[in-house]
Amino acid sequence: MIRAAIVGATGIVGQQFLVALKEHPWIEVSALAASERSAGQSYRKAITDQTSGALRWFCDEPPVEHVMDMPVVNAAELKLDNIDVVFSAIESGPAKVLEPQYAEKVPVVSTASAFRYEDDVPILIPGVNSDHIKLLDVQRKNRGWKGFVTPDPNCTTIGLAITLKPLHAVFGLSAVIMTSMQAMSGAGRSPGVIGLDILDNVIPYIPGEEDKVQKETQKILGVIEGDRIRPASFPVSCTCTRVAVLEGHTEAVFAATDRACDVAAATEALRGYYADHSASGLPSAPANLISVTEDPFRPQPRLDRDNDGGMATTVGRIRPDGVMANGVKYMLVSHNTKMGAARGAVLTAELLIREGYIGK
Amino acid sequence: MIRAAIVGATGIVGQQFLVALKEHPWIEVSALAASERSAGQSYRKAITDQTSGALRWFCDEPPVEHVMDMPVVNAAELKLDNIDVVFSAIESGPAKVLEPQYAEKVPVVSTASAFRYEDDVPILIPGVNSDHIKLLDVQRKNRGWKGFVTPDPNCTTIGLAITLKPLHAVFGLSAVIMTSMQAMSGAGRSPGVIGLDILDNVIPYIPGEEDKVQKETQKILGVIEGDRIRPASFPVSCTCTRVAVLEGHTEAVFAATDRACDVAAATEALRGYYADHSASGLPSAPANLISVTEDPFRPQPRLDRDNDGGMATTVGRIRPDGVMANGVKYMLVSHNTKMGAARGAVLTAELLIREGYIGK
Amino acid sequence: MIRAAIVGATGIVGQQFLVALKEHPWIEVSALAASERSAGQSYRKAITDQTSGALRWFCDEPPVEHVMDMPVVNAAELKLDNIDVVFSAIESGPAKVLEPQYAEKVPVVSTASAFRYEDDVPILIPGVNSDHIKLLDVQRKNRGWKGFVTPDPNCTTIGLAITLKPLHAVFGLSAVIMTSMQAMSGAGRSPGVIGLDILDNVIPYIPGEEDKVQKETQKILGVIEGDRIRPASFPVSCTCTRVAVLEGHTEAVFAATDRACDVAAATEALRGYYADHSASGLPSAPANLISVTEDPFRPQPRLDRDNDGGMATTVGRIRPDGVMANGVKYMLVSHNTKMGAARGAVLTAELLIREGYIGK
Amino acid sequence: MIRAAIVGATGIVGQQFLVALKEHPWIEVSALAASERSAGQSYRKAITDQTSGALRWFCDEPPVEHVMDMPVVNAAELKLDNIDVVFSAIESGPAKVLEPQYAEKVPVVSTASAFRYEDDVPILIPGVNSDHIKLLDVQRKNRGWKGFVTPDPNCTTIGLAITLKPLHAVFGLSAVIMTSMQAMSGAGRSPGVIGLDILDNVIPYIPGEEDKVQKETQKILGVIEGDRIRPASFPVSCTCTRVAVLEGHTEAVFAATDRACDVAAATEALRGYYADHSASGLPSAPANLISVTEDPFRPQPRLDRDNDGGMATTVGRIRPDGVMANGVKYMLVSHNTKMGAARGAVLTAELLIREGYIGK
Repeated sequence: MIRAAIVGATGIVGQQFLVALKEHPWIEVSALAASERSAGQSYRKAITDQTSGALRWFCDEPPVEHVMDMPVVNAAELKLDNIDVVFSAIESGPAKVLEPQYAEKVPVVSTASAFRYEDDVPILIPGVNSDHIKLLDVQRKNRGWKGFVTPDPNCTTIGLAITLKPLHAVFGLSAVIMTSMQAMSGAGRSPGVIGLDILDNVIPYIPGEEDKVQKETQKILGVIEGDRIRPASFPVSCTCTRVAVLEGHTEAVFAATDRACDVAAATEALRGYYADHSASGLPSAPANLISVTEDPFRPQPRLDRDNDGGMATTVGRIRPDGVMANGVKYMLVSHNTKMGAARGAVLTAELLIREGYIGK
Repeated sequence: MIRAAIVGATGIVGQQFLVALKEHPWIEVSALAASERSAGQSYRKAITDQTSGALRWFCDEPPVEHVMDMPVVNAAELKLDNIDVVFSAIESGPAKVLEPQYAEKVPVVSTASAFRYEDDVPILIPGVNSDHIKLLDVQRKNRGWKGFVTPDPNCTTIGLAITLKPLHAVFGLSAVIMTSMQAMSGAGRSPGVIGLDILDNVIPYIPGEEDKVQKETQKILGVIEGDRIRPASFPVSCTCTRVAVLEGHTEAVFAATDRACDVAAATEALRGYYADHSASGLPSAPANLISVTEDPFRPQPRLDRDNDGGMATTVGRIRPDGVMANGVKYMLVSHNTKMGAARGAVLTAELLIREGYIGK
Repeated sequence: MIRAAIVGATGIVGQQFLVALKEHPWIEVSALAASERSAGQSYRKAITDQTSGALRWFCDEPPVEHVMDMPVVNAAELKLDNIDVVFSAIESGPAKVLEPQYAEKVPVVSTASAFRYEDDVPILIPGVNSDHIKLLDVQRKNRGWKGFVTPDPNCTTIGLAITLKPLHAVFGLSAVIMTSMQAMSGAGRSPGVIGLDILDNVIPYIPGEEDKVQKETQKILGVIEGDRIRPASFPVSCTCTRVAVLEGHTEAVFAATDRACDVAAATEALRGYYADHSASGLPSAPANLISVTEDPFRPQPRLDRDNDGGMATTVGRIRPDGVMANGVKYMLVSHNTKMGAARGAVLTAELLIREGYIGK
Repeated sequence: MIRAAIVGATGIVGQQFLVALKEHPWIEVSALAASERSAGQSYRKAITDQTSGALRWFCDEPPVEHVMDMPVVNAAELKLDNIDVVFSAIESGPAKVLEPQYAEKVPVVSTASAFRYEDDVPILIPGVNSDHIKLLDVQRKNRGWKGFVTPDPNCTTIGLAITLKPLHAVFGLSAVIMTSMQAMSGAGRSPGVIGLDILDNVIPYIPGEEDKVQKETQKILGVIEGDRIRPASFPVSCTCTRVAVLEGHTEAVFAATDRACDVAAATEALRGYYADHSASGLPSAPANLISVTEDPFRPQPRLDRDNDGGMATTVGRIRPDGVMANGVKYMLVSHNTKMGAARGAVLTAELLIREGYIGK
């Protein structure tokens, strides 16, 4: 079994890692780390509210019993001798400091954005750009690390990149415009989105989000050239908003293509491209990365976020676009805290295990 | 005083007309019409639930007391002898039949879509395309009517058209892409949007809406040529969605222009264009049709829908767009049941009164 | 296998029966009935929206594939020759007419209220008042039916009755006051609760609900005396409200008892009473009808409605009550469309099968 | 003009004070105080988000322009030489320290709970217990202060106490049971209620709230005896919950009375008792403290919270109660951040001005 440490284990993303790894066939949780404040306590105690005695467990799934008595260690002092992979669920600030410390010794799969935009760091989506793995060799050489850091994409990027890839491969993308209606869980709980702000409302701005999605999409759909990735050249323009939805990001995409792309051809590409994808067969991989619906009222975040265990991106309303030459427009729903966070990172780790980058 | 009949007076839009005309300086409500079922009763009785005795009054504003004892007549038998204008708040199906009957004798200002797409029918937004009024002369001549039908735009079109007009006038629009997050009130109450469908959700499809917005925007921003309107030639592509918001449509707009248009110039155009607009001074007209906010977290539907009595369109987040040549992107919020429905129709009537098309 | 007919199969409760019976070890769906409008079509066609082609399937669980090609028959002409039990998911009005027709020949387990208040009709909750089954013998004799009608309680009654039973058995109840915060799904979809009415709101009245809960609770906790039930004598007073929750009724209960009842004793009664309940071992029965939580912030409808497959009532915040002599107060959450509707009715049928009232 | 200092001016309650005092006929804002962090800046700067430049103004009403350039001083160093009254909008912790410092010199009207439960401190609701003012003389004498501290009740208590008073006066209360469905604004914004916790949910516990309501209600409805208040003797038992509502607390009340009290008599008492109340004519006082509705679907928080400027408590659904001897049950809606916070405190100050306790 691959032995994993979860860093940031007491937060919501850390808890999602615990859920994603529960009864995992290849990976076991061997260490839990968090901030100094939690260090030295059992996991149960660390997530128990002192005043009320209530468990601060934030996932819909029940608490993972078998880690409850594990000790929580200080993330800054995490021992890695018996660890094969670190899952990092911390904020970007501490990630900048801690992830390189870990990566000197072992691979780090991260949900933080700290390293996403560095030249020798891939942003992997298994099945989409699995070939970018080889950039990890460059990274190791550059930095003299035994391990590496591989961050997952932003939760808003992932569904977009997954659905654009087939269109890019088949028709060549020339431009992409996207408006998102993002779930509150994407903002976390500290305090995340305040109820008073979001009820009967839309918040039209998520600081930093639009830039991230634009840059990451081009990088993910780019090609390896020598020691780096040449980003895809089509421009991406986004508007990212927050709506009163618990989980599941909804995106309205307008995609212009180089070559003629009608609705039937686009549908075929979206449905068929991942039939035999490069992450097929991994324990957390969906059968098909994309699920296409014909129901004009779908996808809806509440009804479609959990498709294929929250790992499939659901696409619908594929229509011709009157503005973009050769273009189509469509809607997608992607689960931002499953495929878009911890379970997506576990999928990345699985690919890296199969390819020999993690373990042994 | 101009004497108005409200047709569809018992429904939500009819009630909004009553609110919009309460203490109006130029117009008084002289007749109320509804379906046969309500005919012959007092207005109060017609909107009283028989089982519970509760008043079925749907506006936030209090019920308009002075119409409560007016009789409701059958819309199919409405007498127009002492009526100067009909405000039609009925569905498109009955509008197709009834509005021409009324228009034979008196002007009809309508919130229904039934006649919007006919060649001799303008879609007026006072201050935006006031010059399209002259198409009403063509309509009268064509149809041999003493009155005319002038429909207001769809509630999603109106904010879009108001904000595009300055950009089109100053920079020339070459393409527009828009994604809306529309309020539930736009769907009415029969049953409109069901609570079970919209809570913790986004509904990605509103039948017919996208086509309406695309067509209407081009018509409104078109130019009169002889006996008809030549629609604006720039393509418009929309995705229309429904979110858990009570009132106020939010739209994410991407606008490409013919001539260079940076953020400062676009902001200046949006802010300044309507400083002295052609509807200025009308009782229901906002001082400026557009209100521009610098707060990056605005406009928000709950906070901005009521700006200037629900008659101003609030614009924010004006940013460069990396996809559209010369383009900008921005967010807008427009009150769909004030400027976008009854109060907007009253504004249209005010313009027509001032221009001598109603009353006299 | 017991052969079941689902009447009202195309509605939301009917669909919940299909889900509850999917892969059921004892019962198979043998016939589907609905209104005349759906009759003669396949089930798939009957629930397909003609305009959009979308499937009108309202459960969170995926559509039950193996019934999709079954024909739907007119409920008024349902043949019962090869049917062992009818599950009735229709409104009270048609239930009054149809259920007796069916009951002449076969047992009817119903979610409708039509017969709940008749003297020879029990309102069964397996594990709570299983002994009331024998009233079905009286009913058969009285009415000369081969079958019978046994209605399930109102979805608001069921959690209340389940939690009051242990307190009544151990301490003797002298009075009960309850305020509910009910989920929208309890109102169905025709149109049920309109989004415009419930967002940012509480609706303080649900017609008929309070009377139902008061009467049903006393009947369920009553005792069989000869040919009828003597209702429990303690008064019950309710206020029933609707809140913006999808599923799961929340109730604040104040219970006064005859004998001393402190928090510890009440907790023990609530936790232990159903340890070996009379419905134990039935396929749909929860291990314990009540789940007690120590977390002061629980039960919450979103977090606790699905406990034990939506079949357990979760109780928390058990506190002394300063008003009621010997009383306690507590909160409960009960799943109104699982235990409180179709799955609860299936559980009732299971008990009746085991006791020899259905089948054989 | 009475010169007021607002302490805690940058928070949401402080802003509500600014709105409540805008164009006030008797009171002008003369000083603004907040924590050390804000001290020395203009009010505008103190409430401007440094990163985004957005104004952190939390009221629905527009920002109060004329205070924007006033300096904010450190609350711990507030000079009181030219101040006639301090409005305290701070948390209970700092209130314990600061309010006595202020009260040595000037009267303090507070929304904090810090002093509510002390023997020589009244909890005033003008019109309900105006005679409790004389306890302020006792307080001054006891503590040797020139001023005094007079806290307003908890926002959940106020509507309850206002509606119980007439019933107590006319029928004599013997017991009260209340379940609240409270708005999110009652929890403030630091972070208050998190969106992820409240959407599609009810939170059944608000720490400390139930005790406060129970104790305060008895004190407010008590009688002055010598140097202290003898609390009302009837027991009060509450369950306080949080629902997804922006503003307006809804309460389901069950009231038992000593003397016979039918629905008609209770309605007459609730409607008529405050016809000529002791706060009549004060600038912020509602004409009647209670508004009774006959609509069975009212009061609703969204529709009724703003009745009479948010200062009236709306009562409906007055029904007989089957449990409480002689009792009635009813629903109420009260605006928790208007009558229940800053505007209520301003009303208290107005009464104290008229009675000669503030100013002069």
